[in-house]
Amino acid sequence: MSDTTPAPCAPEDVRRIACIGAGVIGGGWVAHFLARGYDVTAWDPAADAEEKLRRLVAAAWPALEQIGLADGASQDRLTVAPTLAEAVADAQFVQESAPEKLELKRSLLAELDAATPPGVVIASSTSGYPMTDMQTDAATPSRLVVGHPFNPPYLIPLVEVVGGERTGADAVAWSSRFYDVAGKSVITMDRELPGFIANRLQEALWREALHMVANGEASVEDIDASITEGPGLRWAFMGPCLTFALAGGEGGMAHMLDHFGPSLKSPWTRLEAPELDRKLRDAMVDGCEEAAGDRTYADLVAERDQGVIDVLRATGRLGGTAR
Amino acid sequence: MSDTTPAPCAPEDVRRIACIGAGVIGGGWVAHFLARGYDVTAWDPAADAEEKLRRLVAAAWPALEQIGLADGASQDRLTVAPTLAEAVADAQFVQESAPEKLELKRSLLAELDAATPPGVVIASSTSGYPMTDMQTDAATPSRLVVGHPFNPPYLIPLVEVVGGERTGADAVAWSSRFYDVAGKSVITMDRELPGFIANRLQEALWREALHMVANGEASVEDIDASITEGPGLRWAFMGPCLTFALAGGEGGMAHMLDHFGPSLKSPWTRLEAPELDRKLRDAMVDGCEEAAGDRTYADLVAERDQGVIDVLRATGRLGGTAR
Repeated sequence: MSDTTPAPCAPEDVRRIACIGAGVIGGGWVAHFLARGYDVTAWDPAADAEEKLRRLVAAAWPALEQIGLADGASQDRLTVAPTLAEAVADAQFVQESAPEKLELKRSLLAELDAATPPGVVIASSTSGYPMTDMQTDAATPSRLVVGHPFNPPYLIPLVEVVGGERTGADAVAWSSRFYDVAGKSVITMDRELPGFIANRLQEALWREALHMVANGEASVEDIDASITEGPGLRWAFMGPCLTFALAGGEGGMAHMLDHFGPSLKSPWTRLEAPELDRKLRDAMVDGCEEAAGDRTYADLVAERDQGVIDVLRATGRLGGTAR
Repeated sequence: MSDTTPAPCAPEDVRRIACIGAGVIGGGWVAHFLARGYDVTAWDPAADAEEKLRRLVAAAWPALEQIGLADGASQDRLTVAPTLAEAVADAQFVQESAPEKLELKRSLLAELDAATPPGVVIASSTSGYPMTDMQTDAATPSRLVVGHPFNPPYLIPLVEVVGGERTGADAVAWSSRFYDVAGKSVITMDRELPGFIANRLQEALWREALHMVANGEASVEDIDASITEGPGLRWAFMGPCLTFALAGGEGGMAHMLDHFGPSLKSPWTRLEAPELDRKLRDAMVDGCEEAAGDRTYADLVAERDQGVIDVLRATGRLGGTAR
């Protein structure tokens, strides 16, 4: 790999990545980028950070070998820098994964901005802070974006990309393209939303779960089993909207909303439902029809059924697997 | 199979099942029970019910053959009865899957109770009505239970079993055992909760999704992708509690709650979070430790990673599969 590419470079030409913060998420990013063949320089202020990081990467490596490493990928491409400034001095992309504390994120992003070569995009792994609230202290807020991964970042494809009020549209577009090149599955959001999309959804589920445990209504074991033996099997390959559209039978989402719509008024969760007016109904129906594309109801049912069978078999619940 | 077994019988001795209502859920139950080798008699008041039902069963059959049929299982074991009374006359178990209308459920369960041989358990597939509210008109409410499946019932293992205030504990225990024998994964609840467990969880997620679409914050496509490319991959085999425990690193759920607990106050969803007091914290920590059992953090991480890889491969996202 070339050491002479000037930053900024095209997303396809990135070779050197700085990972700031090397905990579960930061370390997961390190493992992912190494597996994709990048040179990674990491920095973390903790005294035992390097040892923990190398252990995390080594533990993840057999999984990454199974998936398939990029040409030249090696754990030897990891350097742990003694200072933040040295970590980013030569970087063509920076991924920040510090603890979720707003003041810390603000000052750290300002410090990273000051130390990183001009034009290089700096992405934050924040689980939910809007970039607008985090970029306040930086001299060049235009290059600061959110690139929110899921745990473990070296296996779960999703990255949510969104800018703040002072982020440049080019930085958002560059980041989305970069993550795509780097093997992630990208959702680019056109507006800030606390918790982004996936975290809002799983947080709603999580809060309902906490309420149930707090009130003695369900055990941790029952909650987990209710998902892994139930809707979780479908959600591995078909999202909640399309899944519910199939619950409407051949009538699809339209029938589902018209049939089950009244249950939105039921006390099935502590989260109040929105008014299911014509506009929302049509948006859901249109979205599902668009998602279905040319696939008929029968096609979708067959696809869902095959998916559930494959997932059941893959996770050792039909026998005949190695697990 | 014997035609002389008197009802009621032991869960292991059931041979003849009546399925009342033959839509998406009722028809899915028919397919499941046929695949497990039972004789099934179905009844549905719709004029074209038999044709639709036989089409649904035929469409599901290749999937059921893949999973493996029970000895003697055959679509020929399905009889469609002309009346409700004839459908249940000889039944050793009754599964009711009528539309979700409380008045309809009440009168139908009363009618089923009057026509079904004494002692035979009658289970309702209701998505969320408490049995207490549905058993009001029945002469023998003690044998009425909820047995709530997930779509499609012939593939998704989960059944939630719960009784109403007037349901006998023996009917609940009998049902749980019966579903287990019939190849389902059973959660037996010791109290009524509108929406039970899994529906409360997925309904919270669903309501947040509807809010996002209603407010133009996310598209149907983004919502579905945020789950299938993100947390949905984990939830196919590891529930939300244990998954979040791993997000706490080696510190587990305790570290996770102490670290991310403050984000419960963030506006990440429209669902208000419960107070994360010591009691709730400890209940979550203890529950996760119990779920983990002898498995270390490293064991769980390895298990999760292998699970994600297997699910990605099984759903055609790593290449090298037939799909």
